[in-house]
Amino acid sequence: MGLFSKDIEGMNDLFEHQMKDIYYAEKRIAGALPKMIEKANSANLKQGFETHPAETKTHITRLERVFSMHGIEAEAVKCPAIDGIIEEADDVAGDIEDKKLLDAALIASAQAVEHYEMARYSSLIAWANSLGHADCAGVLSQTLEEENEVNRAAA
Amino acid sequence: MGLFSKDIEGMNDLFEHQMKDIYYAEKRIAGALPKMIEKANSANLKQGFETHPAETKTHITRLERVFSMHGIEAEAVKCPAIDGIIEEADDVAGDIEDKKLLDAALIASAQAVEHYEMARYSSLIAWANSLGHADCAGVLSQTLEEENEVNRAAA
Repeated sequence: MGLFSKDIEGMNDLFEHQMKDIYYAEKRIAGALPKMIEKANSANLKQGFETHPAETKTHITRLERVFSMHGIEAEAVKCPAIDGIIEEADDVAGDIEDKKLLDAALIASAQAVEHYEMARYSSLIAWANSLGHADCAGVLSQTLEEENEVNRAAA
Repeated sequence: MGLFSKDIEGMNDLFEHQMKDIYYAEKRIAGALPKMIEKANSANLKQGFETHPAETKTHITRLERVFSMHGIEAEAVKCPAIDGIIEEADDVAGDIEDKKLLDAALIASAQAVEHYEMARYSSLIAWANSLGHADCAGVLSQTLEEENEVNRAAA
């Protein structure tokens, strides 16, 4: 980002920036999931978490499809928000020994991640539609619907 | 947090830790709002944002009431998640000159903040109930309902 120029000049730039942000976030989540699965104690929670790596992989593939539909290379930009959410999840989990309690903290961390994704996909869908890219909005909506579903199931 | 001891030993500790985390987050949000109001361009968005400082103040007062009902001092612990969300909001806003575009980015940032709060208050309410503190859960639910409302209005 330039110090003397404003790099986001139009809705298209904003859409592309946020695409790169959520692409980074999904990859960070994919990297964090194995540790969450390993830490989960109850069979139910472990089983629930075990479906996430495949879902996250699907989300990443969908984002790559949207990048391609939009005519640009898939690229990630550092996303301080997801870094902060995952850092906080690690901090709290590292402070808990009791297994049942750790499950409660892991569920809360997963919900914070889901909510972040819901917020970002909602904006992306609105912006894709305002750019007249209903095809991109359609692909992104599939992921948003899945995030909503996971969050409802965890509630 | 101890390097050799696990500081969160029971649900009560987890609840208190998350209370301190969201207390920090609400205060950070209160600090970030004046800049968001100043940056908002459309009269509608400015007006919408202008209701937030009073709401955030109410959320902070409610948290202080819950700390008191729970028998502990109100205290904040650093919350890397909200720091990351606000850092990202500042980064993106700093890169935009076009006023209409800046409004779109501000709305997206506000939604990310709301979603973070929704996730945290949801966990807190569940944990307060599991601790048998229906009174605390009731106060926290008022805030969650307001966050849901703000998010629905922005969608």
